[in-house]
Amino acid sequence: MRGARASGDDERVKAALYIERASASTVTRLSGYYRILGEFEAENLETIASERLAERAGVSSAQVRKDLSRFGNFGRRGLGYNVAQLRQRIAGILGLTQHWNVALIGAGNLGHALFSYKEFPKQGFHIEHVLDADPAKIGTAWNGVTIVHVGELPRLARDGKVDIVIVAVPVHSAQTVVDLAVSSGIRAILNFAPGKLATPDGVTIRHVDLSIAMESLSYALVK
Amino acid sequence: MRGARASGDDERVKAALYIERASASTVTRLSGYYRILGEFEAENLETIASERLAERAGVSSAQVRKDLSRFGNFGRRGLGYNVAQLRQRIAGILGLTQHWNVALIGAGNLGHALFSYKEFPKQGFHIEHVLDADPAKIGTAWNGVTIVHVGELPRLARDGKVDIVIVAVPVHSAQTVVDLAVSSGIRAILNFAPGKLATPDGVTIRHVDLSIAMESLSYALVK
Repeated sequence: MRGARASGDDERVKAALYIERASASTVTRLSGYYRILGEFEAENLETIASERLAERAGVSSAQVRKDLSRFGNFGRRGLGYNVAQLRQRIAGILGLTQHWNVALIGAGNLGHALFSYKEFPKQGFHIEHVLDADPAKIGTAWNGVTIVHVGELPRLARDGKVDIVIVAVPVHSAQTVVDLAVSSGIRAILNFAPGKLATPDGVTIRHVDLSIAMESLSYALVK
Repeated sequence: MRGARASGDDERVKAALYIERASASTVTRLSGYYRILGEFEAENLETIASERLAERAGVSSAQVRKDLSRFGNFGRRGLGYNVAQLRQRIAGILGLTQHWNVALIGAGNLGHALFSYKEFPKQGFHIEHVLDADPAKIGTAWNGVTIVHVGELPRLARDGKVDIVIVAVPVHSAQTVVDLAVSSGIRAILNFAPGKLATPDGVTIRHVDLSIAMESLSYALVK
């Protein structure tokens, strides 16, 4: 009953980033390679040809070699890449071997879902602060993390306790929260609110739009 | 204070799909064009050159023309594309002009966040059924939608009331739920559980991995 990976409709995909600049596309591909190498590890493969990695990633093997050569010499011609070593190197490039302090702004359903998202801590992303503007929520705790007022963000950031801010607030509050994060010195923001948000140079912001995942489903159904 | 779009670190991105097959990448780019055309509409632009659309999408203008030519003749050489018409045509291609019945499986925090996600109904995705296995949740209602037992899925699907299933259950239940959806005749699944899931030919499954969005932030901070 279960089809092969190679079938047309059973395409295995992972949600990632639709990124507007070429440099950022490299990161997206590295994220893909990182996951695929994890699959190869689970399949007990020790070495892998760039062609095999390329095939599963849906890119050309020239693209794989180009992407990886930017960060050093990973493979030997004819021998392929060492799966575990390459995966570890990519983890380092992506910053997944570090501990990142994350502040979550917005203690609603989405916020709680993200707080409970088990993949984040596995990759070094630790939500250590939860902030909200609702007096009814402030002072309550999620799994030992007490929700504090969003106005505490500058102090938390000043104390060096925030690397990344996740914005999970309603759309009408999003720009205000982003402005507060920026003025607090935060340089990396993951935003779940729809619409455009302005950020200054030097701040990296990523927008998660879950509709895009749905669109490829409706596209498949329309076909 | 606010930087231009073109700056290196202030790259505006949208979460989408890291898709392993070339055909699926086209959908991802169409989703991108659709959003960018919405921005052009908001900027009161009536026509747009393929170069301008390409620049904002981070692809070559040849790629834009190739993608769009697959679906018909949208522009006239030298005149560019009509923004509103092209956006409407892409909406049709992506299936966003239809009404899709969506069944959400998993009435936890993530499920509730998705149920409340306002972008879905705007694009024609209507969560009309919420299913769970927890007796404490069954019979309660979210905004008028009564939560029913997951075992009701085959009946709902047989009655023709389910186009797309969203899987928002813990990882250990995900394959069981996907198998149930497949045996109920569902052909489109959006999965939020981490890890690999098997589906047969003819079923489209998309996996949302929120970690990938975080990875491009840590990458930016490590640089």
